[in-house]
Formats: sequence, C-alpha cells, structure tokens
Amino acid sequence: MDKKAIALASRLDSEDAIKLIKRIFEFLIKKGEVVYLETRIAPKIHPHNGMDLIDMTNDRIKFIVSLGGDGSILRVSQSLPQDNPPPLLGVNIGSIGFLDDSNERAIFRDLKKLLEEQYSTQEVSKITPYLVKKNGDEIKLPNALNDVVVVSSKHSKVLQISVKVNGIFLNRSYLDGIIISTATGSTAYNLSAGGAIVSPKLDVMQLTPLNPYARSGLKPMVIDFDSEIEIKLLRPRLNAKIVIDGQRIIKKIQPNSRIIVRPSTAKAKFIRLHDNQSKIYYKRLRKKIIGSLRVPIDDSPEE
Amino acid sequence: MDKKAIALASRLDSEDAIKLIKRIFEFLIKKGEVVYLETRIAPKIHPHNGMDLIDMTNDRIKFIVSLGGDGSILRVSQSLPQDNPPPLLGVNIGSIGFLDDSNERAIFRDLKKLLEEQYSTQEVSKITPYLVKKNGDEIKLPNALNDVVVVSSKHSKVLQISVKVNGIFLNRSYLDGIIISTATGSTAYNLSAGGAIVSPKLDVMQLTPLNPYARSGLKPMVIDFDSEIEIKLLRPRLNAKIVIDGQRIIKKIQPNSRIIVRPSTAKAKFIRLHDNQSKIYYKRLRKKIIGSLRVPIDDSPEE
Amino acid sequence: MDKKAIALASRLDSEDAIKLIKRIFEFLIKKGEVVYLETRIAPKIHPHNGMDLIDMTNDRIKFIVSLGGDGSILRVSQSLPQDNPPPLLGVNIGSIGFLDDSNERAIFRDLKKLLEEQYSTQEVSKITPYLVKKNGDEIKLPNALNDVVVVSSKHSKVLQISVKVNGIFLNRSYLDGIIISTATGSTAYNLSAGGAIVSPKLDVMQLTPLNPYARSGLKPMVIDFDSEIEIKLLRPRLNAKIVIDGQRIIKKIQPNSRIIVRPSTAKAKFIRLHDNQSKIYYKRLRKKIIGSLRVPIDDSPEE
Amino acid sequence: MDKKAIALASRLDSEDAIKLIKRIFEFLIKKGEVVYLETRIAPKIHPHNGMDLIDMTNDRIKFIVSLGGDGSILRVSQSLPQDNPPPLLGVNIGSIGFLDDSNERAIFRDLKKLLEEQYSTQEVSKITPYLVKKNGDEIKLPNALNDVVVVSSKHSKVLQISVKVNGIFLNRSYLDGIIISTATGSTAYNLSAGGAIVSPKLDVMQLTPLNPYARSGLKPMVIDFDSEIEIKLLRPRLNAKIVIDGQRIIKKIQPNSRIIVRPSTAKAKFIRLHDNQSKIYYKRLRKKIIGSLRVPIDDSPEE
Repeated sequence: MDKKAIALASRLDSEDAIKLIKRIFEFLIKKGEVVYLETRIAPKIHPHNGMDLIDMTNDRIKFIVSLGGDGSILRVSQSLPQDNPPPLLGVNIGSIGFLDDSNERAIFRDLKKLLEEQYSTQEVSKITPYLVKKNGDEIKLPNALNDVVVVSSKHSKVLQISVKVNGIFLNRSYLDGIIISTATGSTAYNLSAGGAIVSPKLDVMQLTPLNPYARSGLKPMVIDFDSEIEIKLLRPRLNAKIVIDGQRIIKKIQPNSRIIVRPSTAKAKFIRLHDNQSKIYYKRLRKKIIGSLRVPIDDSPEE
Repeated sequence: MDKKAIALASRLDSEDAIKLIKRIFEFLIKKGEVVYLETRIAPKIHPHNGMDLIDMTNDRIKFIVSLGGDGSILRVSQSLPQDNPPPLLGVNIGSIGFLDDSNERAIFRDLKKLLEEQYSTQEVSKITPYLVKKNGDEIKLPNALNDVVVVSSKHSKVLQISVKVNGIFLNRSYLDGIIISTATGSTAYNLSAGGAIVSPKLDVMQLTPLNPYARSGLKPMVIDFDSEIEIKLLRPRLNAKIVIDGQRIIKKIQPNSRIIVRPSTAKAKFIRLHDNQSKIYYKRLRKKIIGSLRVPIDDSPEE
Repeated sequence: MDKKAIALASRLDSEDAIKLIKRIFEFLIKKGEVVYLETRIAPKIHPHNGMDLIDMTNDRIKFIVSLGGDGSILRVSQSLPQDNPPPLLGVNIGSIGFLDDSNERAIFRDLKKLLEEQYSTQEVSKITPYLVKKNGDEIKLPNALNDVVVVSSKHSKVLQISVKVNGIFLNRSYLDGIIISTATGSTAYNLSAGGAIVSPKLDVMQLTPLNPYARSGLKPMVIDFDSEIEIKLLRPRLNAKIVIDGQRIIKKIQPNSRIIVRPSTAKAKFIRLHDNQSKIYYKRLRKKIIGSLRVPIDDSPEE
Repeated sequence: MDKKAIALASRLDSEDAIKLIKRIFEFLIKKGEVVYLETRIAPKIHPHNGMDLIDMTNDRIKFIVSLGGDGSILRVSQSLPQDNPPPLLGVNIGSIGFLDDSNERAIFRDLKKLLEEQYSTQEVSKITPYLVKKNGDEIKLPNALNDVVVVSSKHSKVLQISVKVNGIFLNRSYLDGIIISTATGSTAYNLSAGGAIVSPKLDVMQLTPLNPYARSGLKPMVIDFDSEIEIKLLRPRLNAKIVIDGQRIIKKIQPNSRIIVRPSTAKAKFIRLHDNQSKIYYKRLRKKIIGSLRVPIDDSPEE
C-alpha cells in the first residue's frame, strides 16, 4: 500500500489563511510527507497537488487540516466522504471557533505531534435530513454535524408547522423556523435561539423553535438519538428553506412538504491533541461561550 | 412466603382524595387483597392497617397507589425505601399532574388490570445531593426524582455561586438559585426557569440558573449522567436553602458550603398501564405542558 | 365642497374577502354613499370606482375600510398618504388580528354606526427608518406602524452590528437581526423575539435583538420616543435587509451602511367603535395574545 | 432660618465604608459645614451628630450622601421623608452599583462641586403598593423606587395569581411571583427575570412574571404610569410575601388578599454631577449591565 497523504483545506477569503496554509504545506513537504490541497486552494499554492474533498477517504489521507473558523470545519466535514473520512484538525484563525483543537500560534508544534502520532480521535455523531415530497418520495439531503434549520423563505412571513416525534403529533405553531441540532451544534445557533447546551458525550437531537408566537408553548426539547423528528409545512402559499450546518441551503421547499431528521450512521472524526477532553470542553465553554462573572467575592449583602 | 400486600398513600388535605382512597381500600379488600395504608392516613380509614412508607419494601408490598398530584408522587417516592421500592401508580385527582398513569375516573378499571398483572414497570433515575461542610465533611441528603434546587435564603438577596462540573470550574454568577434536574423533572420547575424538556429515555442531569444577572452567561446545560455538579456558596453573610423535589427543605446552608449532586444508584419504579410509553409521553407533553395552536390551516400570508 | 367618499381595501388572495367587499360596496351604494375601491381590487368589483391608496387623503375620503388581517391594515396604512390620512377601520376576516376593530360578523352593524358618525378616532404613532450610505447621504424609507426589522441577507450568516442611541455607543453584538418597534408593534414580531408588551398609550420605541449570541448582553430596551436609534452594519462582506411592517423589503443594504430610526411626524388614524379603549385593549390582549390559565382555583398545595 | 446641614448615610457592615464616611465627615466639618450622621452610624463616628433618616427633610438637610451600593441608596430613599426629601448622592463602594453618581475615588472632588452648588437634581418616580385585606380594607405600604415583588412564601410552592390592570382582568397564572418595577428598577431584578430595560425618562410601570408555568402566556408588560395593577392571591392555603426595593419584606400575606400598585406622588431626588445625563445613562448601561462584544470587526463570513 502507498504511503498515506496529509490533506489541507482552508477558507479562501483570508490572505492570512492562505499564507499560513502555504507555510504548513512547505513544512510538511520538508518533513517528507505527501500533501494534498483541496481543489479550490491548490491553484494558489501548488496546482499539481489538488484533490477534491469528496475523494479524501481515510485510505488515502491520514488526516486533514482545516484552516479558518467553525464554518470551515463544517464545510470540510460536509464535503468529505461520509463513510470513513480522515480525522480532521481544525486550526482557528481569527474568529471565535469552538470546534477547533489548534490555532495559528500552536499549529507547527501541533503538527509535530500529529506526525509522531501523538493524538487521539473522537467520533462525533451527525444527523441526516430527508425531504419528503407531497407524493411521498423521500430525498436524502447532506448530513449535518451541527444543525438542520428550517426557516421561512420570506423574512417577513412566519411559517406554520406541525411537529411529530416518532410519528406522534406534538405541536402546531407559528414561528420563524425550527432548529434540530446535535450535541456538537448545541452551542451554535441553538444556543442563541434559547436551546440548552448539551454535553458532547450525549448522543441526542435537540428541537428548538425560532421566535415562536407568544402562546405557542413549543420549547427546546432534548430527544434521544434513536428518534425521528418530522416537520410539516402547513401554510398554503409559503415556501421554506433548509439550511444545513449554515453551509448548504436548499431553497423552495414547498407547502405540505415534510422534512424528516434522523440520526446518521456517518460520524465526523476529530483529532484531539489533549488528554482530558472533558476538562478541555468545560474550560472552552467558559472561555468561548458562557463567560464568568468578575466581581470581588466579598461583594456581599448587608445583614 | 406470605402473600404480598398492596399499599395506599394519599394527600391529606383533600376530602375527595380521602373518600376515594376509602373506596379503593374497600374495593381491594373485597377482592381478597391485603392492604396497607400509609401511617398518616390510616386513622381516617382503617387504623389497624397503617404502615410507614419507609417500611414498604417490594418484598412486602407488590405495588403502591398514590392519590393526589405530582407533589404526592414525589413525596411518596422520597419516603419509600430507596433500595427495592415497590412499583408506584400515581392517580391524579384534581390537578395538572404529569407523573401519574391513572386518574379518578379510570382508577377502578386500572386496579383490575393491576390485579391481573397487566402492566409493566419503568425504572426512572434519581440524583443525590450531598452537602459538603467547610471542614470537608460530606452529608448525603435525600434522593431527588425531579430536582435539587439551591436558592437564596432571602428572597431579596441574590446568591453568588461558582459552578464546577467534574471538578472543572465552569462559571461564577449572581442568581436567585440553581436547579439540577433529572429528565423526569425537566418538565417541572426546570421548564419554568427556561430549561429544555428532556426525553424520559435519557439519563442526564440538567443545570438551569434561576434568574441569573443579565451578563452571567450561565445557560441551561444538559450533562451526561455520569457527572458531578458542584455548587459553592460564595457570599460571606448569605445562607442558602436546598429544596429537594419541592418536598424537603434543608435550611441554613452556610457560606462557603458546597453542594454536590451525583447520579443515585436508587431508581424509582413506576407502573405503566399502557403499551406505547413513547407515544403516551409525547401526547401528554402536548396536552399537559406545551399545548398546540388552534387556528385555521389556511390562514396564509398574501403572496 | 363635494361629498366625501368611503374607500374599501382588501386582501386579494381570499375569495371570502372579495365576496364580502362586494357586499359592503353594494350596501354602501344603496345607502347613497360614494365609494372608492383601491385600484387593485376595483376590476373585481366595479372597475370605474378605482382609486390609488396614495390619493386617498382625508379631504376626499371620510374613512377607509380594510378587509383581511393585520397584514392588510399595515399595507394600507403604509400606502395611504402619510399626512392627513383618512381614519381606517380594520375588518378581521379569518386570521388572528390584533389591529382590527370589526370582523366579518359585525361589519354591517358597525357600518351603520360609521354612517351615523358613532365612532371616535385614535391617532397612533409611527416611526421612520433612514438609510445612511457610506458617503453620509440619508435616504428616508417608508414609515412603520409596527416595526422596522434589520436582518442578515443570508439566513445562515449572522450580522455583526453596533447600536447607538442618541449618538451614544451602546453595544456591539452578533445576532440574526434587530427589531425596532412601536407600542402598536410590541405585540407582533417584538413579542416573539422576547420584547415586552407596551401599553398603546405610550409613545416609545423598543429595541429588541433577534437571537443574539449567548454573551451579547443586548436586551429588549424601551426608549422614549424623542430618540434616535442607529444600527451600523459591521461585517465587511455581508449585506442586510430592512423589513418595514413585514410589508416592504429593502434589500442589499451594504456593509458599513447605517440605519437610523426616528419618530415620525405622521400618525395612523384608527376608527374606534367602542367607548372604553383601555378595557378593550386588555381584554383583547388576554384573548388574542397571552391567554389565561384554566384550572380549578382550589388546586392548592398540601400544607 | 438656620444654615442647612449635610447628612451622611452608609452601609454598616463594611469597615472601608465606615473609614470613608469618617473622612468625609471630617472633610465637611473642616469646610465649616454642619453635618448629621444617620442614627445607626453616629456612634461609630460622632455620637452627638446623629439624626434619624425620617427627620431629614429638605428644609433641614441640603443634601445627603449615601455610601455603599444600590441597596444602600434604596434603603436610604425608602427611609427619608417621602415628601420633600433632600437630594441624594450615591457613592459606590466596592460593588456593581447603577444608581450612584460618585465613587470612593471621586468623592472628595465631587464634594467640592456639591459645596459650590455645581450640580443638578433629577426627580425619579416611585410606586406605592397597597395591601387589600379580605374585608376590603386598604393598607398603604412603603413606596418603592425600584420594584414591588410579590413571591410565594414557600420556595417550593408556586403562587396562583390573577392580574388586573385598571380593573380589567388580564391573566391568571401559576408562577414563583411577579415584579412590578419602575423605569429605575428596570435594570435590577426585572432584567434578570426577562423584563425590558426602560429609559429613565419614561414614567411607566412594568409587570414581569417570575418563572411562570410554560403555558402561562403572561409576558413582561410596560404600562403607562397612570394605571393601577392588581394582583390577587388565589391558592387557598398558600401565603405570599411582598418585597419592596429588596429592603422591606411584608410577610404572611394571606390567600384572597389583593396587592394593588399605583404611581406614587412622592419622588426620589438624585444629585447629578454631570451634564449629559442621557449620555451617561447609555454608557453606564453598556459598562455595568449589558456589556459589548470584543471581537475583530473583520471576523467576517466567507462569501
């Protein structure tokens, strides 16, 4: 068998990112590695080493490095082969990332660890949305690592939807849209919409309404992973959009369509450079998401 | 071995409940059953058949029927032996219950089913709070089926607490209090405080702040069950209370005390009279908790 | 001076609305009234009596009747002349309206009252959004009766905005968008987004963020009417949209543009058929927006 | 008429506060001023100069300085004569205050300004709660500058209340309690409970539910000042407490009692040392309450 290669992906719109990817490329070549660049960035760095993300199976690629923020990681994870993808290292560059495990300052030290195989991998669950047409045909849509969001196609017109869980009718509501998120996605859009943060160890789906009408009653719900959530579009003349991981947008979903979300058999594989993942998770949560109060402890009430 | 008995428990403050418990007692006696009454209601019905809830092990009691609302079920579940308790049937009488599986209209039909052993039982997880004194001593407090709530001892003075998960410092906040709930308790106080509804199949703890200061950042968090949540009281002259399942109140928790919540090995055992528990759960959620919109479907926006 | 006419407006997409507007037209003609139809519905009813909404000043039109839901009222109020508009009666037909004062069952009885001048009018404040281009040019946009909403042009990309009040920098946040609403609009989109209900007697603007990032801190704010709210779009490559009363959409608002909202000198004029407007307001609020619990009062806790 | 005196008040439980009040006392005496100390602190500083807060009318006291946090200001404002109180300067010492206009570093410079009469005063509205007994008797309770809070007397038992505004029944709900706040109090407990921030220029009352049941529908409402809000306690065996400005607690409010809140004719008078109060308000709001995001502006989404 041939030697496995390393792959590099990056956001395109940042010169800093492109410069850094160039340095990483050269660093790895010097170390004697075979390096592939995702097709869209190859022309900017080494045109002969391009490869489409979809062709990067774990058989060919030992790991892939993604430069940018969470958006880049989500895009790469969505474009890689869903079965047997290579482990992915997110390198945060200039944004508030949450999925990364390295950054622009630490990357060369971290690459050395990777070359010496000093890392573990973590499998993370995905969910799959299906679009059910009026005639009952079911179309599989791309997997989501973070979330599947169904929103009105018009910012000024609210959807009316009915929600079923495991075939049981749960609720009918007016709302801007609905988010179905994984544990991984619970700190993303879900959190802004009022959903709960979910520990990454839990395999669950969370259903969170987006700006529901005051009396709707629909609340964030954390549901066991082995479930099926169905959203039906009820308003006769109002289309919806499906947004997957904030990356793929499927437009013109017609009235009476149903969107079903089920657990995916595919997993994302993340490179983890540090031992105590649970410790790192809660620290990161404090630093990047929830913060902490800074006041003198003895700011006490008068008796 | 002796024939196993049936036990009856009830709220005391409702004449309707006492009348019904009398009828249930007589019905079961006629059927040839041995029936015990929890000590506090025995004098009102048949003084010789009293038994303390704590003595009602599953060896002696084949099942126990509890009349009232969720408060009654929580009280009974807390007072029964924590190891090997008998299965419990909640009979809702005159309130918005969520934990019951029967009610005042269905109870005699349901009792026939019970006597013919046409039922299943469902084990439900509990959590255990521990109070850690300043000297490090750890005191085990009663198990909670729904929630452990830590609140300021003064309605007009907010707590300042720090929160750790699995020993990792997560957040320091001003707030009225904090709720740590089970999946079972997720539709109770947790929901009013902005926490997520959690499917009863999930073994988790949820940490939900009560009216945190605007910039606190502490949000509802759903944590895997095999975790330890620690709350430390920081304000020098402000005591707290611990409220367990809304039933037991431990007062005068002093500054610098820590409250630790861990999963309990004890389980509550509920009688389930219907086959499709998942179906019943989501229906009940709609009917009793979240409701559903009632408007004409064709209330559509103009093109 | 000529006799003043009555004007009729209606949603177009409902056959029931068109049928009813026909009956109202005939009813008023029989009563000897001059009746104009807004241009777009005239062909369906009486083509010679068409008139553009913008030409319907109070000098020519004694009052205008609008059939449909709140959307119709907002559309009509936006299209009428802003100075000296005729008083408007909203007739709710088949939806959950809040701005109307009549409905399909009461309309003919109410029209008799109108013809006998048994009604009062209520002036309601509006706000005006201005778009400030990068070069400082200020473009006045249509007035809003309910709200001015600034949202990301992409459902999957959050805005970054800075907010100033009266020229004072208040906050910078990531969010889906921002709502600036009047008291009238406080029960509309504002309420779904977490804003407060505002009594119709108050002349205020409310600033409410749409799904802000967890640590944003930006909260619904009720500001005295004599203020100026400025929103600046900060993300270099992300456009926004301005949605006025859910009716007019101004697209492609470019990065670094500023949107300023100020009180308008124009007022909407509503026909009020009932004496105690305050009483009607709170009743309507209960019936249409917030609802009320229905449980037995004696569902009391056990001592 | 005699020369008007200056009064000093302080929190008692902080040595730093007592030290500073001593220095302020000596500073003012040296300047030739007559200085009174509130009775409870006089023994610690100059026992002969004690005076009860209730006796400090503006006829005798030209201004009063209060050391501590917002709690101290609220306590002092509540204890001063309600008609014709002297203007009050809050000096923040070691806490997150919002009502103060000076602090421990600026106080001596600010005192010089005060002695030279370089300041303005701002009148701030208060509200008055009344307790209506079952027999209809109405008892006036102390005025509130921030808020009147009605809460369950038991942390584990929710209230059931009905709410009327201006005599109109609005809503019946289960909840922990209800907050009625002024504009001044809108950034205090009201904000933690989900209410809106209200500009200090607005004379309004805000009604905000505390942890209402999921389907309650009761939402924060901003009501014109010239209104009357009535809360009736419905649960037969559950008492409530009334908490005024977090300072005065009236216990054992019995079932079927009504609490009515009306605007007060009394005003608090605050000393303002800076010209542009509106500017200072929004800056302070950003710094002390809502914060602002700190991220690179060019953290932009990829096209």
